Amino acid sequence: MTHAADRNDAPADRYARGLAALRLVTGTEHPAVLDPIAEIAPDLARLTVEFGYGDVWSRPGLTPKQRQIATIAALAALGNAAPQLRFHIGGALNVGCSRREIVETFLHATVYAGFPAALNALTAARAVFADRPAAPGDDPAAASVPSDGDRHRRGLEALRAVDGPHGVDVVRSLDDIAPDLGRYLVEYVFGDIYARDGLALPLRELASVAMCTALGTAAPQLRVHIRGFLNVGGSREEVVELMTQLAGYAGFPAALNGVAAAREIFAETADAG
Amino acid sequence: MTHAADRNDAPADRYARGLAALRLVTGTEHPAVLDPIAEIAPDLARLTVEFGYGDVWSRPGLTPKQRQIATIAALAALGNAAPQLRFHIGGALNVGCSRREIVETFLHATVYAGFPAALNALTAARAVFADRPAAPGDDPAAASVPSDGDRHRRGLEALRAVDGPHGVDVVRSLDDIAPDLGRYLVEYVFGDIYARDGLALPLRELASVAMCTALGTAAPQLRVHIRGFLNVGGSREEVVELMTQLAGYAGFPAALNGVAAAREIFAETADAG
Amino acid sequence: MTHAADRNDAPADRYARGLAALRLVTGTEHPAVLDPIAEIAPDLARLTVEFGYGDVWSRPGLTPKQRQIATIAALAALGNAAPQLRFHIGGALNVGCSRREIVETFLHATVYAGFPAALNALTAARAVFADRPAAPGDDPAAASVPSDGDRHRRGLEALRAVDGPHGVDVVRSLDDIAPDLGRYLVEYVFGDIYARDGLALPLRELASVAMCTALGTAAPQLRVHIRGFLNVGGSREEVVELMTQLAGYAGFPAALNGVAAAREIFAETADAG
Repeated sequence: MTHAADRNDAPADRYARGLAALRLVTGTEHPAVLDPIAEIAPDLARLTVEFGYGDVWSRPGLTPKQRQIATIAALAALGNAAPQLRFHIGGALNVGCSRREIVETFLHATVYAGFPAALNALTAARAVFADRPAAPGDDPAAASVPSDGDRHRRGLEALRAVDGPHGVDVVRSLDDIAPDLGRYLVEYVFGDIYARDGLALPLRELASVAMCTALGTAAPQLRVHIRGFLNVGGSREEVVELMTQLAGYAGFPAALNGVAAAREIFAETADAG
Repeated sequence: MTHAADRNDAPADRYARGLAALRLVTGTEHPAVLDPIAEIAPDLARLTVEFGYGDVWSRPGLTPKQRQIATIAALAALGNAAPQLRFHIGGALNVGCSRREIVETFLHATVYAGFPAALNALTAARAVFADRPAAPGDDPAAASVPSDGDRHRRGLEALRAVDGPHGVDVVRSLDDIAPDLGRYLVEYVFGDIYARDGLALPLRELASVAMCTALGTAAPQLRVHIRGFLNVGGSREEVVELMTQLAGYAGFPAALNGVAAAREIFAETADAG
Repeated sequence: MTHAADRNDAPADRYARGLAALRLVTGTEHPAVLDPIAEIAPDLARLTVEFGYGDVWSRPGLTPKQRQIATIAALAALGNAAPQLRFHIGGALNVGCSRREIVETFLHATVYAGFPAALNALTAARAVFADRPAAPGDDPAAASVPSDGDRHRRGLEALRAVDGPHGVDVVRSLDDIAPDLGRYLVEYVFGDIYARDGLALPLRELASVAMCTALGTAAPQLRVHIRGFLNVGGSREEVVELMTQLAGYAGFPAALNGVAAAREIFAETADAG
C-alpha cells in the first residue's frame, strides 16, 4: 500500500503537507477555520493540520473528490456536526464536486440515515451554495426521474447491479415477515434512489459504505455495501483508505470496526486481491 | 398484511395520497414544509410526499396517532433532527395526540436516550405548544405522582406487567455486579416512569420499541420491548408496521435490523400468529 | 458496594440530597436550570433532582470531578446535547476541574468520536470559559508537545502502559489489511494524545470508557478500555459506578450494555476483586 507519510516524517513536513491540503479544501491561501479553537486548544489546531490533513487527507489512496463525498456522507449520517458539514460541503465544491453530486449524496442519505438527516444536510448545502456563484451548467435541481415507469423492475435491476444475488436474498428474506418493507427496498431504495443519475455508482456506493461505517449501527448493511462497492468497481485499497479517512470524522472505533467488516468481506471473495 | 399501496400504483396516485396525509399532519391545505428544500432538491420534496407519506404514512397498519408518537419518540432519541422533531410534535397534535401524551413520551425518553435527549425534546415541545392554543383540559403539567409511595413494589409490578418474568431476570442478573443499577431500573424506570398515567401502556411500549430501533445501539433492550409491546396488547403486525414507518426517520438499516429482532421474538413465542 | 441512597429513602430526603448536589454542580444556591422545563413537565424537573442528582450523582463511588469528566466526555461523544454539554462544562469547573483538564478531555474525544465532535465540544467550552474568570495558572492553551520526538516509540510505550499486550495485538492485527491505520493508532492516538499531560491517566481512561459506553457503537473498544482503566489504577467499583452515572446521560440501555461488557472483562481477570 502506498502512503504519503511514514513514521520518519518530521513534524514540520507533516504540518506543511497538511497546510497544503487544507488550502485545497478551503480554497484559500490562509485557512482560518481553526483560529477560534486555537485560542483555547492550539495543539488541537496543530494536530488537525498535521494528522488530519498532513497524514490522512494527503494520502494517495482516494481522490480529493472521493474523500469529500465520503466525508459529507458520513457527517450527514451522523447529523450532529452542522458546522463541519457546511465546511466540508464547501470543501467538496473546492475540490471539484458539483452541486448536483452533493445534492445526490444527500438524497442517497435518506436511505441510510432517514429523511430528517437528509433534509438537514440539504439545508446546510443550500446555505453553502447561496454564498458562492454556481459553475455554469451545474444545476442541483435538475430533475432525475428515470424514464422507465416501472419502479419495481428498475429497482430489481439496480439491486442486482450493486449487490449481485445477495441483495435479492435480503429482499426475499423479508417475504414472510415484512414483505412491504422488502418491496420499498426494491422500489424506493433501488428504483427511486440508486437508479438516479447525477452521482456515479462507485461514488454512490462509497457514500453508502461511509454512512454505514460512521453510523456504527448498520453492521449487516455495512458488509452488503462493502461487497457492493467492490462489485461496482471499487478496490479493496479504497475501502481500507476510506476507513482510515473516517477515523478522523467518526472516531477510531468506527474505523477499526469498519476494517473488521472489510476483512470479513475480503476473505469471502475468491480473488486474493 | 393489508397495505394501502401496491406496486402497480401510478406515481400521481401515490403523490395525491401522500399530499392528503401531509395535510393531516401539517393541519394545512397547502403544506409548505418542503418548499425550502425544493429549491435545490425538488426530487426529494416529491419523493417525501410519494414515498414517505403516500406509500408509508398512509398505510392502515398503525393509526396516525401511533405513527406520530413513534416518530417523535424516535426523533427525540436520535437527538439530531430538531426541526423535524418540532414539525412532528405539531403533527402529533394535529392528528389528535394531547400535549399530555407528547410530554409523557419525552419523560419516557429519559429511560432510553437519557435526560439530555428528553430535555431537548421538551424544549422543542414547549416551543410548539407556545404557538397554538391548548385544547380544553389538556394540561401537560398535570402532576402524575403515583399515590402508592413504595416505588420499589410499584416498579416490580409494572415490570412484571410489561416484561413478564424476563424483566425480573434482567434485574436479578445485575445482583452480583451492579445491584443499584438494577434497583434504579425497578424504581426509576418502572416505578417512576412506567407507572405514570398520561400515556396508555401500549403507546408507551410502542415508544420504547421506536426508540430502541432508532438508536440502533440497544439490541438486547429492543428484544425485551418488542416482547413487552406484544405483552401489553400490541400485535406483530404493528411491530412490523412500526419498523416500516421508521425506515423513513432512522434509515433502512435501522428498520431492517428492527425486523430481524422482531423475527427472533416472534419465533420464540408459542402463538404462530 | 456503598451507596448513598437505599430503597427506604423518603422522596423528600432524595429531593433534598439532589438539590444539594445540584447546588454543587451549578455553583448557585437556587439552581434555575430546570425552570423552563418545569412549566410543561414539572415532574421531570422533580425526577431530575430526585433521581439524577439525589439517587445517582450523590453516590460516593466516584468523586464529583470524575462524574463531571465522564459526563462531559459522554455528551461530547454523543454530540447532540449542546445545552447540557455547556451546563456540565460549567459544572466541571464548579466541582474543581481545571480548564486544562476539560480541554484535554475534548482533545481525547478526537480519538473516540472524531474531530468534528471534539471541535464542537471545544466551541462549547470556549463559550463557558468566556463567561467567568479563569483560576490563576489554569491555562488551557498551555502547549503539551511531548519532548521526545519519536511519536512511534512514545506511542508504543503509552499503548503498553494502558492496554498491556492486548493493545499491541490490536495494532498487529491490522498489519495485513490496514497497516497505516495501525500506525496512526500508535502515533496519533497513543503518541500524540495519550502521551500528553494535563489529564491524569486514570481520568483519561475513565473518559475513554465513558465515550465508548455512551456511543454504544464501540463494543470491542469498550472492552479494551475497561481493561485499560483497571490497568492504570481504576477499580471495578468505579467502572460499575460510571455505568450507573451514564444511565442518566446516555440512557439505561447504554448503561446496561456497559455493565455487560464490564462483566466479561471482570471475568477474564484473575483477581476476583
